[in-house]
Amino acid sequence: MSSLVFLDPAYPAGRVADIAAAHLPVTLQGVNRGDGVFESMLYTQQTVRKIDAHLARLAVSAQACDLVIPEEISWRSAIDTAVADFDATGGAEEAVVKLVAMRGEHDEDPAVCWVTVTPAPSLGRQQRDSGVDVLLLDRGYDSKLAERAPWLLMGAKTLSYAVNMAALRYARKHGAQEVIFTSADGVLLEAPTATVLLAQRDGDTKRLLTPMLETGILPGTTQGAIFDAAKQAGWELGYGPLRPEDLYQADGVWLVSSIRLLTPVRTLDAKPIRMDAELHAQLSALTDSIR
Amino acid sequence: MSSLVFLDPAYPAGRVADIAAAHLPVTLQGVNRGDGVFESMLYTQQTVRKIDAHLARLAVSAQACDLVIPEEISWRSAIDTAVADFDATGGAEEAVVKLVAMRGEHDEDPAVCWVTVTPAPSLGRQQRDSGVDVLLLDRGYDSKLAERAPWLLMGAKTLSYAVNMAALRYARKHGAQEVIFTSADGVLLEAPTATVLLAQRDGDTKRLLTPMLETGILPGTTQGAIFDAAKQAGWELGYGPLRPEDLYQADGVWLVSSIRLLTPVRTLDAKPIRMDAELHAQLSALTDSIR
Repeated sequence: MSSLVFLDPAYPAGRVADIAAAHLPVTLQGVNRGDGVFESMLYTQQTVRKIDAHLARLAVSAQACDLVIPEEISWRSAIDTAVADFDATGGAEEAVVKLVAMRGEHDEDPAVCWVTVTPAPSLGRQQRDSGVDVLLLDRGYDSKLAERAPWLLMGAKTLSYAVNMAALRYARKHGAQEVIFTSADGVLLEAPTATVLLAQRDGDTKRLLTPMLETGILPGTTQGAIFDAAKQAGWELGYGPLRPEDLYQADGVWLVSSIRLLTPVRTLDAKPIRMDAELHAQLSALTDSIR
Repeated sequence: MSSLVFLDPAYPAGRVADIAAAHLPVTLQGVNRGDGVFESMLYTQQTVRKIDAHLARLAVSAQACDLVIPEEISWRSAIDTAVADFDATGGAEEAVVKLVAMRGEHDEDPAVCWVTVTPAPSLGRQQRDSGVDVLLLDRGYDSKLAERAPWLLMGAKTLSYAVNMAALRYARKHGAQEVIFTSADGVLLEAPTATVLLAQRDGDTKRLLTPMLETGILPGTTQGAIFDAAKQAGWELGYGPLRPEDLYQADGVWLVSSIRLLTPVRTLDAKPIRMDAELHAQLSALTDSIR
């Protein structure tokens, strides 16, 4: 069973609600305008992973949207309540803990905030083993736009995900399962719901690279955690500007995200991508160690 | 009072519901991903204006999102029921009829669709007389992107409006009330919730210009109706590429939309915009004649 807990000042531990029931009026700006923010975390082995990083990013996203959201302690209490309810009603080996905060009907209304816990989709788990076929799609922005245009909310994780979803549908209609967005000037950005990671092996040196944040991509919490762990394990780290040819020349390319973790890219625009099995095994172990 | 009617196969005329009550579960993709489409129409003097144009655009937006929505007849029935309910419970001189269709929880679920009727905001009506101060803000896209990138949903009116709302908040923080987006290559696009129109007087010739649709802007139903009426009245018509200097050299600049109708632009980036009172009066009369 899935669980739902609303953040509610009258219920310090959060208000448990029936996830199948109707809870939202149609008049919320969050509902009508995609005007809100969210986070998704993996809950497995009794642990909600990287909760600090996700709560920090939620706060940054909310600030970009001028959305006042509850303090961290309220989120943590609601999360605790939600996972306890989830476990008490059956649980799952892997689950998604989703945090949502959306603007109310009037600007002065408090944000409407909730936590859901649902079983992790099986497709993402399969793709960790099978890998994915990826299309490169133009995101339309140049790679230097983010800093000069805060109104574009680049780097904020908002509920306005229609383009991300449309890009994934476009990929599925064209024989792929995933997308890596490129900027108008040809720089690699991110996947619709994941960060891009590539590895290079150079003699005894192992190097891990990811697109630079200045392109306006979302700062990946999983990428950040993998980088921390890889550094400890002796890898070199680097931040792009990366281009498609870097992917074709890499010794491994992955999409990384909180729920699906490390997903190998097997083809890019139908051309094969190399995968060094040893590097993949090492990165998988590092990823599994993230808490 | 405001009215709400859901499209529901079990209720051919639509299902009247309490707009203040909760109706939506938190699990809808429309709620979580801004994955849906909408339209707003003006209801005044017993008429919902430009209903054909709005229903046609709703269908185009839905198709861009691969969202299957009910037939027009279901929308028309629900609209009839909603305005009748609105009038029976008090009505208003001007009201907004909003149509929303959003993706359900699972891809195979039918879209969740409703019609609301609410009194038109007083601010928009005031601004028809007072005019608005406008900032030019970069939308980040180049003006030739739309055709080569259908996954960006340009020209579709989706619920993912967080950037549009953020741009308006940015304007309000910087001494303006409205925004005109420009492309990365400096071409005028549109306002977050309106179309840009400019007039030129050249001897006895009156010319009306608007940005070309190929830039990926939303096709304005009000702009279209004003163009039709202006052509009948002897105006010349033209479609950009337009640039900011065209606005400073114009004899009048307006933001036009279904609810606010014709809103004069009084300043652009704090510099005054000329307004030919006679042209404004003529365009106002044309706009008032739209049904």
